[in-house]
Amino acid sequence: MTEEIIVEMQSAIEDELKHQVNRINEESTKIFYDMISYHMSWSGENGIGSKKGKRLRPLLLLLCSSLDGSDKNWRHALPGAAAIELIHNFSLIHDDIEDKSDKRRSRSTVWVKWGIPQAINAGDALFVLSDMAASDLIQNYSSEIVLKSTRLLHNTCLNLTRGQYLDMISEDNDNFSLGDYWMMITNKTAALIAAATEIGSILAGKDEEDQEIYRQFGHYLGLAFQIKDDILGIWGKEETTGKSVISDLITRKKTLPILFGLEKGGTFAKRWREGNFKLDEISDLSNELLKEGGLLFAEENVEKLSEMAIKMLQIISPRGEIGDELFFLVDQLLKRES
Amino acid sequence: MTEEIIVEMQSAIEDELKHQVNRINEESTKIFYDMISYHMSWSGENGIGSKKGKRLRPLLLLLCSSLDGSDKNWRHALPGAAAIELIHNFSLIHDDIEDKSDKRRSRSTVWVKWGIPQAINAGDALFVLSDMAASDLIQNYSSEIVLKSTRLLHNTCLNLTRGQYLDMISEDNDNFSLGDYWMMITNKTAALIAAATEIGSILAGKDEEDQEIYRQFGHYLGLAFQIKDDILGIWGKEETTGKSVISDLITRKKTLPILFGLEKGGTFAKRWREGNFKLDEISDLSNELLKEGGLLFAEENVEKLSEMAIKMLQIISPRGEIGDELFFLVDQLLKRES
Repeated sequence: MTEEIIVEMQSAIEDELKHQVNRINEESTKIFYDMISYHMSWSGENGIGSKKGKRLRPLLLLLCSSLDGSDKNWRHALPGAAAIELIHNFSLIHDDIEDKSDKRRSRSTVWVKWGIPQAINAGDALFVLSDMAASDLIQNYSSEIVLKSTRLLHNTCLNLTRGQYLDMISEDNDNFSLGDYWMMITNKTAALIAAATEIGSILAGKDEEDQEIYRQFGHYLGLAFQIKDDILGIWGKEETTGKSVISDLITRKKTLPILFGLEKGGTFAKRWREGNFKLDEISDLSNELLKEGGLLFAEENVEKLSEMAIKMLQIISPRGEIGDELFFLVDQLLKRES
Repeated sequence: MTEEIIVEMQSAIEDELKHQVNRINEESTKIFYDMISYHMSWSGENGIGSKKGKRLRPLLLLLCSSLDGSDKNWRHALPGAAAIELIHNFSLIHDDIEDKSDKRRSRSTVWVKWGIPQAINAGDALFVLSDMAASDLIQNYSSEIVLKSTRLLHNTCLNLTRGQYLDMISEDNDNFSLGDYWMMITNKTAALIAAATEIGSILAGKDEEDQEIYRQFGHYLGLAFQIKDDILGIWGKEETTGKSVISDLITRKKTLPILFGLEKGGTFAKRWREGNFKLDEISDLSNELLKEGGLLFAEENVEKLSEMAIKMLQIISPRGEIGDELFFLVDQLLKRES
């Protein structure tokens, strides 16, 4: 039964995350802890259950740390897995403020519940906690490996802020091109997934050449993942995504299908440039973009990038039960509807 | 001439900061870099000159790293000094949003100039840059010393977020006590100054017992520094502080003089609790607090804490030119009017 080890890993990731975040669980800052616990889906209304984040990034890290058929050592990598997930969640809290998103995983976002000032500070705390988690790798690895991993995490975080900057200015930038788009999503999404797979390989003791293949595997997977997200941001359903589906057309995000439509310069582009959509116009607009080929173009890109990711994975040629799991997970990811 | 080495250090700190921040100086993210360059007082209106931050924390770190009379090695500690100053500046950008402060060093704050979303992200970038700077210590120190220093920085940052949380809830908390106050400023202000002096001693190769004395030196200095700030926040002049002097009474911050007045329960407390001050009432209110002894109480605390700091410094018994500098700097700090 292939899924067993994934469930075991997910449970271990959750325990490690709780252990790391517990550093701020003190009587005098109880509500501060509550904010983070709520965001991590450990408490609050609808907190516990299937709407929790997928913990995709830490799972990828753990799987990549133990692809040699020796399935024993993935637990050593848990602090690194927690660090990746904490970075992801720090950026979600801040992105939700920056993008004025009021929903995340079908629940109110942290800034909606506790206000912007507290949400900024809670995000900062998660960022520090990710640093602390990464430092804990020293319990199981040499200082050389730990310093290499933390440097990679820092580079990745800097890329996240770069990507977020590009994302924010894209909304008012009429010259934002497809080239800008690829740079933006490389930094904003693919970088963290690539960090997960690359750090996995560093912890597994792979050489630099192998590390680069792992990185590229995560990079292509991350790009495909983001474009799936772009598709769901226009044609997804709120019940399955947990986010407001109208937001990408309303917020004027420059996602791949929209950029395709704009470069085409047809009816969609004309209407989109006029702006000021009423809520009931959105489905017409998304239908128009579909007719003009925006959905197909995005799907073709997902297909192409998925193939690249799979190709890298084949070079890695993962073995054993954990190898099967990784193929299974990648397959699930690329099929996801939420 | 005692000040010469301070000027030399300040110049080296500035160069190191620019070197570290240069990581985001790229054509595609030019404005992103500009935000940080502006905040660091390297560019923008009134950017260059005396209103720049004092670089107090990195100076303390450098001085404490070389108190043995061997004045040569402080340059090795520069990446650590930069890390401390970048943490300080990350927290300023976020605090200014959280506190709705529109002025910093007599200039508009980053969020006023570029909006809250961009300012959050710029603060995040400074945080990552501080991590990267600290990692650069590996060029000059053993991995054991680097990991110890970075762990201490992470603990300090977590304390900053704790302190900021306590600060934010204090405004609406009628039960906020003097005990809460000491915990708040220990985390919010003293922690980072204590980290500067302690890391200085770690980089100097001091043993744990000595490190604790250095830490306490920074701790008491930081507390005294904060209470000076509390005093300036009510009785300071905008021209010298660069901040709006009325803000602490208007924003209902729980600073030491105000808490003293509230616990006294006299005319000041009564009027303060009613709230809704007009701008022209503020000077009456601050005069009332002065009459009731709020200023004197705060000054006595500064005095007491300064004595403790000096006592620790005497135990350290710094030698040579750098030792003289440290005494001089501490003296300046405790006399400051801005």
